[in-house]
Amino acid sequence: MGGVAGGATAAARARRLDEDAEIIVFERGVFVSFANCGLPYHIGGEIERRAALVLQTPERLTARYRLDIRTQQEVIAIDVDRHTVRARDLHDGREYEESYTHLLLSPGAEPVRPPIPGVDHPRILTLRNIPDVDRIKGIVDGDVKSALVVGGGFIGLEMSENLRRRSMGVTLVEFLPQIMPPLDSEMAVLIERELKRNAVRLNLADSVEAFEDVKGCVGVRLRSGTQLEVDLVILAAGVRPESNLARDAGLELSERGAIVVDEHMRTSVADVYAVGDAVQVRDAVLDQPAYVPLAGPANRQARIAIDHICGRDSQFRGVQGTSVVRVFDLTCATTGVSERALTAVDRPFQKIYIEGASHVGYFPGAERLSMKLLFTPDDGRILGAQIVGGAGVDKRIDVLSVAIQAGLTVYDLEELELAYAPQYGAAKDPLNMAGFVAANVLRGDNEMVYAEALGPDDLTKWTVLDVRSPAEHAADHLPGSLLIPLPELRERWQEIPRNKPIAVYCAVGQRSYFACRLLRQKGLPCKNLAGGLTVYRRVHGKGRAAERCAATSG
Amino acid sequence: MGGVAGGATAAARARRLDEDAEIIVFERGVFVSFANCGLPYHIGGEIERRAALVLQTPERLTARYRLDIRTQQEVIAIDVDRHTVRARDLHDGREYEESYTHLLLSPGAEPVRPPIPGVDHPRILTLRNIPDVDRIKGIVDGDVKSALVVGGGFIGLEMSENLRRRSMGVTLVEFLPQIMPPLDSEMAVLIERELKRNAVRLNLADSVEAFEDVKGCVGVRLRSGTQLEVDLVILAAGVRPESNLARDAGLELSERGAIVVDEHMRTSVADVYAVGDAVQVRDAVLDQPAYVPLAGPANRQARIAIDHICGRDSQFRGVQGTSVVRVFDLTCATTGVSERALTAVDRPFQKIYIEGASHVGYFPGAERLSMKLLFTPDDGRILGAQIVGGAGVDKRIDVLSVAIQAGLTVYDLEELELAYAPQYGAAKDPLNMAGFVAANVLRGDNEMVYAEALGPDDLTKWTVLDVRSPAEHAADHLPGSLLIPLPELRERWQEIPRNKPIAVYCAVGQRSYFACRLLRQKGLPCKNLAGGLTVYRRVHGKGRAAERCAATSG
Repeated sequence: MGGVAGGATAAARARRLDEDAEIIVFERGVFVSFANCGLPYHIGGEIERRAALVLQTPERLTARYRLDIRTQQEVIAIDVDRHTVRARDLHDGREYEESYTHLLLSPGAEPVRPPIPGVDHPRILTLRNIPDVDRIKGIVDGDVKSALVVGGGFIGLEMSENLRRRSMGVTLVEFLPQIMPPLDSEMAVLIERELKRNAVRLNLADSVEAFEDVKGCVGVRLRSGTQLEVDLVILAAGVRPESNLARDAGLELSERGAIVVDEHMRTSVADVYAVGDAVQVRDAVLDQPAYVPLAGPANRQARIAIDHICGRDSQFRGVQGTSVVRVFDLTCATTGVSERALTAVDRPFQKIYIEGASHVGYFPGAERLSMKLLFTPDDGRILGAQIVGGAGVDKRIDVLSVAIQAGLTVYDLEELELAYAPQYGAAKDPLNMAGFVAANVLRGDNEMVYAEALGPDDLTKWTVLDVRSPAEHAADHLPGSLLIPLPELRERWQEIPRNKPIAVYCAVGQRSYFACRLLRQKGLPCKNLAGGLTVYRRVHGKGRAAERCAATSG
Repeated sequence: MGGVAGGATAAARARRLDEDAEIIVFERGVFVSFANCGLPYHIGGEIERRAALVLQTPERLTARYRLDIRTQQEVIAIDVDRHTVRARDLHDGREYEESYTHLLLSPGAEPVRPPIPGVDHPRILTLRNIPDVDRIKGIVDGDVKSALVVGGGFIGLEMSENLRRRSMGVTLVEFLPQIMPPLDSEMAVLIERELKRNAVRLNLADSVEAFEDVKGCVGVRLRSGTQLEVDLVILAAGVRPESNLARDAGLELSERGAIVVDEHMRTSVADVYAVGDAVQVRDAVLDQPAYVPLAGPANRQARIAIDHICGRDSQFRGVQGTSVVRVFDLTCATTGVSERALTAVDRPFQKIYIEGASHVGYFPGAERLSMKLLFTPDDGRILGAQIVGGAGVDKRIDVLSVAIQAGLTVYDLEELELAYAPQYGAAKDPLNMAGFVAANVLRGDNEMVYAEALGPDDLTKWTVLDVRSPAEHAADHLPGSLLIPLPELRERWQEIPRNKPIAVYCAVGQRSYFACRLLRQKGLPCKNLAGGLTVYRRVHGKGRAAERCAATSG
């Protein structure tokens, strides 16, 4: 039931394993196996041909796999005792029954439509399938100038970029104080800056109170008081599992409404399996239930469900939440858990920051990347990572995803043997550097202090030492900080007052680490500001950033 | 001893660990810590500024780390009993002695200069350091037209590309029947094609018999009889450890002349350590000694040696041979061991091929990649991988490198959760696909036959079934193959003769896998041609390729 990602994969796999099985695919829509993740880019024009979004036709799938694919046929009820489903032909409304020996549910998730007054306006749209694309593109191709995007997750960011690409004025409203909830706030800041750089107006910690029709356009009133009038509203406020049918059939659902499945993708009811965006998964890092709708896991779940139906013992290992999104010129990627998630479940962790580059600086075209790494404070097992930057972000997150899957530690990162040539990396890759920094923390070679502990009100409790150059200090520095450039420190360390704890900083935390090594050997206990002034400014930005910090620091 | 990669890293690390140590760095050359791997690209012009090659100066290193850096001072003897070295000041020839408590050797490797008649011609050069770059660039910047590159390894390929970039005619001579010895021949073919596409003349299985001076240019006579006259010859015929000093001091060397060290980088002599391109390492996959000079491991070895000197227990884990090189528009990367290496030590293995893409086909800019994966036939542990293609090759090889380091299997590849968005990959990444194909082999779902077993003389022993489209068949097919397109196979399978074993093929091995699944369920045992016609044509190319196959098939 459901012929898009999980359903189509499952049907094909079933045929490969069993030439004789009778395989029926019910799909409510017109299309099977379309390019879900490509939809925003057809609206923006980067994917020019609409036909490119249609990955498979029922005809081609049927020719290859001998499937009975029934599009525009909606399953409206499941009778788990009688092993039957009731379907409705959407062409003529005719209803009929089919029996099953095994039933696989792949209903997906539907965009949340918040119950805001006026939300039924015809120019307030969601994006989930090809008909949605046609509707949105129909409006964008016309004489329109402005759009509101509600929600700063993946779809919201992708739509913001693509509508800007179409030269529309874009306002993005997000009810949280940051965009991209899988990221911690000081990493999300980098994406927020990129949005602003591309003239997306950001309204964080804000939400829509009401929509109204204004001569065919949409009037919007935000909680902050801002009033807008836009040609188009995209609702991208998250998705919700399409599990009504499963609920009605008596399948166990999670609190959030996701279908509960075991490691073989079996639901609570015999012979009924479920996969994809409608199911609850196991968070493989935290080892607890989670709802993480992602395309890759959906495909693997389909394979595993069919394997089990066909008598094989495949097991789904759970989800790490590995994801990536391009936001204008930046790539933003994450794997494992965030500091916020760790704090929420009260798990101990350590964190470090790295500023690195896609490849060695002496070869042209190197692009910056900013990394945050989370790991266990006892054995250094990697818990999560977030990387934002240019080229090579996806590469490093994939390596870290595998590292988490394999249970590797930060000590293993030190020893990673990554492919190096000047175009691709560095003899000490940013991943090795992350390992060095993290392992130095665990070995006690590098004692960190975090920006959260050095807020504007805390600074006077510390002797704050800046070991950068005078020029860097002049451009920007922490209030009251003492400047002793690193090359002079060996001669001048005795100038440092000892009446308060010492916090050392530089631009990103490397020179200050060298400084701390020196000072500690001189008998001066000191701490290194993690991520340097770079991360500090992301945590304690102007205005709003300070609240954000208070809300998220662990 | 040696102030370039390993030596500079070691000295800096030593100071971080011990503020009071006396640290002397002897460097025979003028430069410390230069961009070894960038040298060819300054000759080609991609790295415009020569200054970009100089990563550190003795002055800056000294200012930061308080080191006693002595450039143009050559260590000429080591007295391990007295714990002294004898050095010569290359400015004035003065000799003097220094004592040590610990000695770290980082002498590197030197380019092999084969004893060919006439090899001392001033226009026959090697490339190892900045003075070499100056010499070569001095010639290339003049009125020159043609060059011979001797050796088809990393440096030979990089120099071929960069000399072509300078519009020189380039001939590459390699004495093996393929370029890039870390690759198996059917993967190296892809690079050979790229070289030819860029007008590099390839003379494989050939070598230089003699050089002679022709009015200041170099006359070359090859063993094949070819005669050339070129403006410049680059010798890139491999490197040899610079271990004469170590040998004279009584340190144990390998047969190949590399310094033997233990896991702490200790040599056979007390208090003497060695790192970098001069040492023998442990091949981490085969668990046997090897000589693999690479920049990444050299850096880690330096760190480990200093850790141990300073009383820490760091251990070097050995080398996997992970490497990458750009060859014109292609990227060529490898990790772990090749089929040739496995065959040479008689280790059992299985192999599969994948043709994939950097990201989903529906998003613009996807680039092709060709992968070979080697794994154990019993438990599926990954032994090695080779990938050639466009964007994303370095990413996949890094993931596989970590997978090997972590001891993962092909079953783990099936479950990799990689970051997916249309610009970066696919919901089923080529790495997942490689896992699926390999695991299918081990589970018995996909029985492979390899191109080596279907040579032109073997074809008549098989019923060879082509399941591609008639148009594909018309364009190219195996002689005598029966065409039944996959969509027709379910109706026409009874046409297949059963008097011989059946080999099924398509373009890359996917449709033929589907066909085999169907046929085997119909009771027809059949085998799937691994990598399809694509790999077949790389193995059994015209002419020379057939020999190559005979020489390397396991």
